[in-house]
Amino acid sequence: MKTNCIVAQSGGPTAAINASLAGVVKEAVSSGEFDTVYGSQNGITGILEDSILNLTSLVKENPDNLFTLQKSPAMYLGSCRYKLPSYEENEEVYKKIFEKFEEYHISAFFYIGGNDSMDTVSKLSAYGEKINSPVRILGIPKTIDNDLCITDHTPGFGSAAKYIAATMLEIAHDTYIYNIKSVTIVEIMGRDAGWLTAASALARNSYSKAPHLIYLPETPFSTEEFLSDLEKLLKTQNDVIVAVSEGIRDKDNKYISASDEKLDNFGHVQLNGAGKTLEYLVSEKLGVKVRSIELSILQRCASHIASKTDLEEAFASGEYAVKLALKGETASMVAMKREEPYAISYHAAPIGDIANEIKSVPREWITPAGNDVTPEMVSYLLPLIQGEVDIAYENGLPVYLPVGHLIH
Amino acid sequence: MKTNCIVAQSGGPTAAINASLAGVVKEAVSSGEFDTVYGSQNGITGILEDSILNLTSLVKENPDNLFTLQKSPAMYLGSCRYKLPSYEENEEVYKKIFEKFEEYHISAFFYIGGNDSMDTVSKLSAYGEKINSPVRILGIPKTIDNDLCITDHTPGFGSAAKYIAATMLEIAHDTYIYNIKSVTIVEIMGRDAGWLTAASALARNSYSKAPHLIYLPETPFSTEEFLSDLEKLLKTQNDVIVAVSEGIRDKDNKYISASDEKLDNFGHVQLNGAGKTLEYLVSEKLGVKVRSIELSILQRCASHIASKTDLEEAFASGEYAVKLALKGETASMVAMKREEPYAISYHAAPIGDIANEIKSVPREWITPAGNDVTPEMVSYLLPLIQGEVDIAYENGLPVYLPVGHLIH
Repeated sequence: MKTNCIVAQSGGPTAAINASLAGVVKEAVSSGEFDTVYGSQNGITGILEDSILNLTSLVKENPDNLFTLQKSPAMYLGSCRYKLPSYEENEEVYKKIFEKFEEYHISAFFYIGGNDSMDTVSKLSAYGEKINSPVRILGIPKTIDNDLCITDHTPGFGSAAKYIAATMLEIAHDTYIYNIKSVTIVEIMGRDAGWLTAASALARNSYSKAPHLIYLPETPFSTEEFLSDLEKLLKTQNDVIVAVSEGIRDKDNKYISASDEKLDNFGHVQLNGAGKTLEYLVSEKLGVKVRSIELSILQRCASHIASKTDLEEAFASGEYAVKLALKGETASMVAMKREEPYAISYHAAPIGDIANEIKSVPREWITPAGNDVTPEMVSYLLPLIQGEVDIAYENGLPVYLPVGHLIH
Repeated sequence: MKTNCIVAQSGGPTAAINASLAGVVKEAVSSGEFDTVYGSQNGITGILEDSILNLTSLVKENPDNLFTLQKSPAMYLGSCRYKLPSYEENEEVYKKIFEKFEEYHISAFFYIGGNDSMDTVSKLSAYGEKINSPVRILGIPKTIDNDLCITDHTPGFGSAAKYIAATMLEIAHDTYIYNIKSVTIVEIMGRDAGWLTAASALARNSYSKAPHLIYLPETPFSTEEFLSDLEKLLKTQNDVIVAVSEGIRDKDNKYISASDEKLDNFGHVQLNGAGKTLEYLVSEKLGVKVRSIELSILQRCASHIASKTDLEEAFASGEYAVKLALKGETASMVAMKREEPYAISYHAAPIGDIANEIKSVPREWITPAGNDVTPEMVSYLLPLIQGEVDIAYENGLPVYLPVGHLIH
């Protein structure tokens, strides 16, 4: 009798995480090695709560579903913010998960997610090894933040980068029309790593140098230097457009943020307001017209302007994870290696090297003054936003596959 | 000797105002009736300050420029916020404008803009009549707000509506993935008229009813009713997504945006927008996860997802204005009339009936409870977002024509 496999998604949404899911489903079905591909709803919690969808039938019902799924934002299987305890703390939950694996005749589990999800992959792998479980456990990277180690970049990042760069270009057009001095501050996601904010540099072209200043969380932010950077530029140009990470901090590591600090379930500080804070600062100190714009969740869910390169790599990562499982690989994450001219090869990276490590922007890719990125950064980023995705439209709007729980 | 014509743009940017400019230039050049088509930079102020571009040569240099111009955001000619005084107050400025018309051998002036620009068209027309000037003066409507009278709708609105609906759909996808109660508040432009906020209703489809609540500035906003609307919905669903106009006011006509004040890190009072204000209210009163998103200027400059119908109508409005001028028409604005099944015919509307009047959403297109729009509103809106614009991409980003002053 053939075994089954199960896949889940977790963390924040991206435009590419469903492409990885589609890659897993396509490869698992077409390999002929599995009886059924299951999907656990809301991350690992679906396994604990028997909230499980049959993905083989989703595809068999209508093969078009797989194509629509690849291009749909957010997560077909839903997400969770469940933090798996260590097994020393709570072995019961591990026992339950592996009992469910047995009950569903699971031989491979695929978890698509970011840092926290890779932590889950790492813990489940370790427990699986301890109890000699035959279940292959594999991570498939996904995060708009691009902050996972070992892999050249993460699926989901390229599409967010493309949205940010295109939006920055459009904001520049919007800003250049008035014949007065103005400052526009665009706040971009990225709590600890500045990759997304750096991607705004891709908006620069022969007629527009916006963003004129870029501040990442990797270097300490000084309000004095910021104001002096602005004053210098305003002497020779009307409009100054600034890209700023939500995670910028001063030299004492304190967030430049206007609102109260709240902690999420993982103990992360919930940020809101670096842009707004700087807007008020500029208004008071420089007295020029100033506006702040927060790209907010639009940068992670705008599938209508996803990067084709990103979605293709996300899909291939999913396929590759299934191939790894079938080769007997476990306790690994799919990682991407870059070749020049740009091409990506896939390999298995030991999960222990990845979980809970953060890949920051290297200091040498930020200018010495800490207010821009270098040409090396731009060269690294440029291939990731290439290509447009052919989205179907109906009644003037993109056609997406809804989150699974809405149609089941 | 042939005469010349001149065109200018004013007010806030839209995705369609350059399509109207392209329509003027195309028709004025191809009619063969004008020697040169001039463009006044930064609205009417370009005429006063001799800041004038030759648009005939822009097109002759490279005919592709006209196609790229049609699809480019913001304004090729730049904008101004200059309010023309009445001629009783300051006749000098009128004298100067009409002297410049003579100097440049101008026989027709086209002004593309919203309410304030139509006020300028009205004043210039009246002065022209008084001095028996032969210059034809015509307005071409443009505003994302859709608040001009007489015309069925305004160029620029359809593209903003399409962006808002598509973004609302993507926000819904992003929101449905967590298995917890949450409220998402999306703040949409429109200080006095709720057309743009109403357009969020177009995001609804067979699997998503978001936005679940819609509040326009046309009906008084009650925080008590808002909280009770939310509580009712949260009893039966996890996610409530709310579309709210930036201009909502309470029964005493006081903006909701000013009702909640917070201090930032610098000790400044932050005057929050309507969305942020409601976010704090929900957080305090209902204690559920809540987020507010301000679509900000992205809704008026996102040419990468413009409505094809909108750009075509904007272009046709520009063409029609030239035809009107050549027929001797003056003191008019191009207006659109809707036929069923959906088709638009163009006609000249006397400018006096339009300037300084605001077209609000009719009360009967808002539900009695004031928290949604009716099916009649959706039927009115739906044709305006139809069709996608074929944008050229280079290096992963849309190719646009820069604001003229950047290449001259």
